[in-house]
Amino acid sequence: MRVLIIMGSESDKPVMEESQKYLQYFGIESEMVVASAHRNPDKVRELCITAQEKGFGVVIAAAGMAAALPGVVSAYTSLPVLGVPLEGGLPGGVDALYSIVQMPAGLPVGTLAVGKAGARNAAVLCARILGLGNKDVAAKVEAFKQNGYRI
Amino acid sequence: MRVLIIMGSESDKPVMEESQKYLQYFGIESEMVVASAHRNPDKVRELCITAQEKGFGVVIAAAGMAAALPGVVSAYTSLPVLGVPLEGGLPGGVDALYSIVQMPAGLPVGTLAVGKAGARNAAVLCARILGLGNKDVAAKVEAFKQNGYRI
Amino acid sequence: MRVLIIMGSESDKPVMEESQKYLQYFGIESEMVVASAHRNPDKVRELCITAQEKGFGVVIAAAGMAAALPGVVSAYTSLPVLGVPLEGGLPGGVDALYSIVQMPAGLPVGTLAVGKAGARNAAVLCARILGLGNKDVAAKVEAFKQNGYRI
Amino acid sequence: MRVLIIMGSESDKPVMEESQKYLQYFGIESEMVVASAHRNPDKVRELCITAQEKGFGVVIAAAGMAAALPGVVSAYTSLPVLGVPLEGGLPGGVDALYSIVQMPAGLPVGTLAVGKAGARNAAVLCARILGLGNKDVAAKVEAFKQNGYRI
Amino acid sequence: MRVLIIMGSESDKPVMEESQKYLQYFGIESEMVVASAHRNPDKVRELCITAQEKGFGVVIAAAGMAAALPGVVSAYTSLPVLGVPLEGGLPGGVDALYSIVQMPAGLPVGTLAVGKAGARNAAVLCARILGLGNKDVAAKVEAFKQNGYRI
Amino acid sequence: MRVLIIMGSESDKPVMEESQKYLQYFGIESEMVVASAHRNPDKVRELCITAQEKGFGVVIAAAGMAAALPGVVSAYTSLPVLGVPLEGGLPGGVDALYSIVQMPAGLPVGTLAVGKAGARNAAVLCARILGLGNKDVAAKVEAFKQNGYRI
Amino acid sequence: MRVLIIMGSESDKPVMEESQKYLQYFGIESEMVVASAHRNPDKVRELCITAQEKGFGVVIAAAGMAAALPGVVSAYTSLPVLGVPLEGGLPGGVDALYSIVQMPAGLPVGTLAVGKAGARNAAVLCARILGLGNKDVAAKVEAFKQNGYRI
Amino acid sequence: MRVLIIMGSESDKPVMEESQKYLQYFGIESEMVVASAHRNPDKVRELCITAQEKGFGVVIAAAGMAAALPGVVSAYTSLPVLGVPLEGGLPGGVDALYSIVQMPAGLPVGTLAVGKAGARNAAVLCARILGLGNKDVAAKVEAFKQNGYRI
Repeated sequence: MRVLIIMGSESDKPVMEESQKYLQYFGIESEMVVASAHRNPDKVRELCITAQEKGFGVVIAAAGMAAALPGVVSAYTSLPVLGVPLEGGLPGGVDALYSIVQMPAGLPVGTLAVGKAGARNAAVLCARILGLGNKDVAAKVEAFKQNGYRI
Repeated sequence: MRVLIIMGSESDKPVMEESQKYLQYFGIESEMVVASAHRNPDKVRELCITAQEKGFGVVIAAAGMAAALPGVVSAYTSLPVLGVPLEGGLPGGVDALYSIVQMPAGLPVGTLAVGKAGARNAAVLCARILGLGNKDVAAKVEAFKQNGYRI
Repeated sequence: MRVLIIMGSESDKPVMEESQKYLQYFGIESEMVVASAHRNPDKVRELCITAQEKGFGVVIAAAGMAAALPGVVSAYTSLPVLGVPLEGGLPGGVDALYSIVQMPAGLPVGTLAVGKAGARNAAVLCARILGLGNKDVAAKVEAFKQNGYRI
Repeated sequence: MRVLIIMGSESDKPVMEESQKYLQYFGIESEMVVASAHRNPDKVRELCITAQEKGFGVVIAAAGMAAALPGVVSAYTSLPVLGVPLEGGLPGGVDALYSIVQMPAGLPVGTLAVGKAGARNAAVLCARILGLGNKDVAAKVEAFKQNGYRI
Repeated sequence: MRVLIIMGSESDKPVMEESQKYLQYFGIESEMVVASAHRNPDKVRELCITAQEKGFGVVIAAAGMAAALPGVVSAYTSLPVLGVPLEGGLPGGVDALYSIVQMPAGLPVGTLAVGKAGARNAAVLCARILGLGNKDVAAKVEAFKQNGYRI
Repeated sequence: MRVLIIMGSESDKPVMEESQKYLQYFGIESEMVVASAHRNPDKVRELCITAQEKGFGVVIAAAGMAAALPGVVSAYTSLPVLGVPLEGGLPGGVDALYSIVQMPAGLPVGTLAVGKAGARNAAVLCARILGLGNKDVAAKVEAFKQNGYRI
Repeated sequence: MRVLIIMGSESDKPVMEESQKYLQYFGIESEMVVASAHRNPDKVRELCITAQEKGFGVVIAAAGMAAALPGVVSAYTSLPVLGVPLEGGLPGGVDALYSIVQMPAGLPVGTLAVGKAGARNAAVLCARILGLGNKDVAAKVEAFKQNGYRI
Repeated sequence: MRVLIIMGSESDKPVMEESQKYLQYFGIESEMVVASAHRNPDKVRELCITAQEKGFGVVIAAAGMAAALPGVVSAYTSLPVLGVPLEGGLPGGVDALYSIVQMPAGLPVGTLAVGKAGARNAAVLCARILGLGNKDVAAKVEAFKQNGYRI
């Protein structure tokens, strides 16, 4: 199963490439798309509705400021959704953090730390999730641990 | 022109009825719908896409916690959108406040205070907006001012 | 109808010129004035009391720190007032944000994001408001949407 | 010299009567007026412009939420202005605190703690200020100190 | 695969039983253990090291205040770990939220909202994760969605 | 009457020289002393106990981080005490702000904005206070106002 | 060696009796005094200057709001000083927390959690400190651990 | 008795060398180890369990972000544990501060200020603690005080 990485803006790429780099380490294929819950809601919807049938197993969604994207993704797919809050608005990205982690009951977004640490951890959490059903990925998760959690 | 009031949850009604009560004072018809950006994204989309042709002039959107609704409404309609952050998550509703006010450039949500004060002010701001093209509403706005900003 | 942009200080100009640039895109004339609720209260009062008769349809008010300007403008005019919190005091401009968005019931300020994103969105919200009664502006709002919410 | 106590709303009275009670202890006459910078800006202006000639020496201004009152009072009078942030909006009254204390250079508001402690301390600070030119008040300030800072 | 629910204190049970109730709905067996990263670090370690071989597929860890538990669990297991911040210390549980979500790169904790909403969503995210490899659970996830995200 | 400016550290001088510069404009003599409530408590005590007899009329106290100085000064003198929170610890100086403004009932510190704006306003508030009993200072306060609140 | 517990106000007693109760468990004698850094600075000074010669080994200082007490105690004694922030001002006691923990370099206050948890932990930390030189106390610290960190 | 300094990451060294430099001034031997509660939990456990028998008297633990280290250290040793929150995550290191200071009852971490001030003060507090049983260290503590709390 592959991982779909959706981010709200082109400018989020340098951070979210950390997710992709880490996923590569774990031998997990990923696809990175820029699509905003606000600028391209129909594109987000389409991406999410078709994600499962296209072979995606997890979606990573990253956004800054009023970061609606991860929650909206969670609404349109039944796959596990991981959220990465990004800086750009209030200092430290607390606006994005609260917008992502405080989801109402029923629609979970597994939220990681703000910024690069979160982008990397989203990938590691994908590996742990996909490792449940994929021995190669699971072996890589153990190798990662042996390597001091570094790629 | 009428006002569409969308709120994320049945439990938001006691607060948002303040909007409706104030709109009535200004002689503005309104329709109140419960539809969540997370639980019913397609319903929200449908409501917004058809809002203008149904005669709505302004949309008031209210939500608590990771309050994506007002921003998503702003994405699906070209009408002015006013946002009311509600309590229910972090103390004082700061999660909802940040989720609503910190919209990225291009997709505005005119945000009011958290809770009842905001619900009332959303209605007053509707009256000021619709009063630009409707003398009866404009007269009511003046009467409201003369009355000490009370209905 | 034109838009009146009031800002508390000369130093706010680089941010608020974003409002003006966006308003130009929508074909909306604007006038930009520096007037502080604290330094020039009578000038603010005069500007607001005469705004409607001078042909203004919306007022954008921007200020930093203890940002009283937008609320005071809302007290002196019956036009819709949009507020833009600016940085300069506490990190991220949270002092200005709270001073603008937390208006008591009766006197609304439709508040946008802190800084440039907010300055741009204040203009876009003006366009949505004035587009209710002006087909040219409304057409521009649609063009803006088609253009990916960029000018 | 007397002290003028202005508060934004009738509902602030129970807190601000603490100021009055403390001023009485110090033998300082006071007058308490409800006038909002938003609801009654002209009344506030009139009160402030005439305060000095009416024999007031200090103004205490108290408000909650987007608490513009103390700053506006400081703009309309050259008397020392003391500000008391009140609860009612965000938890702990931090919105009022930031709206009052973060005044830009040139227009000071000497800000006290949120709520009753602040209301009492505004009175004590009045006594210290007026005690500079009034021996009876100065004696009362010393008596207050001897009494463990209690009235 | 079963879900292991670890919470820091007996007093967390009323909140975390929400996780268990939701897991039951999805047909996922769970085991609930009280073990604190501070009071019983060796018990936590033992639970985590043996979790995978005992048939657990996901660990939910919940704690309040200086909530070290979820991160420590993530250190001792390679299973996906979901964290639920609980109230009890600073208002709204922000101390627990920051202690859980801000994990350094390498050791992810998928963090949910503070309190009951988070406890429920941790279960739903478990269902989405385990549904990747279990058709019965996946069917339940769809049924949950059809039922308006309610059990 | 002169003004005593006490600051907690040599490094606070560049900010607090703003107070001195503004006091000079108003024709008010001042003395600037570095004395910390923590490093030199007895020096602070001595300075405060003798302040009135040495001809000081107001004390400005400035400190950063756990800013105990203004409150301790208020405890040792009966003169009006103005507090200026300084940056250096938590972002924006909120630690200093809370440490200064949140004084318990009985011991007031009239608190100004964090940093340079506060340092300037402390001087302006001194001028308003001393202007109550000094016509030259009062005239300067009016001149300052006429000059747009600039020196 | 005994422990001196100083608290800023009579109303802090119910919380600080937790310290005393825990110290009794560890067989450590304590003395509890109400003395405020603001209301009774000379009493605080006297208590601290003589603490060591009176046989005290550690001082616990507790206060709310602008909590200067622990820092001032640290200035007047060379004994280890532990600080307990108390509620009463801003929600959760964050004003007290910042006022105590953010001490400048040179004058440490070992700060514990806000409220009862902190009051208890101040006692436990005293026991760990005094246990370094007292085998009975050290044995009690081990017994406390065996007992699940409960008395 | 020596002091054990544990920090979560190599990158914390420049800050924590301040602790070591100050300890040297007081004539206290120290050992500095990089060991993370998340990356090397067993190393941390081993270090703590053997700390007392190796002659350590106090442990200083420093970490940033979700700073579990100090609390985990407190769980594995009965020595006094001092915590230093470090920047690196949310602005000002508030995530680390809350993760360290808000320990539940029973397991104290004496917390110092964020960053270098805290690193220095951890050393000074060690000196005050070890000075209780070591006259040379106690003399150094007095010399430090005479020297204006500088080394």
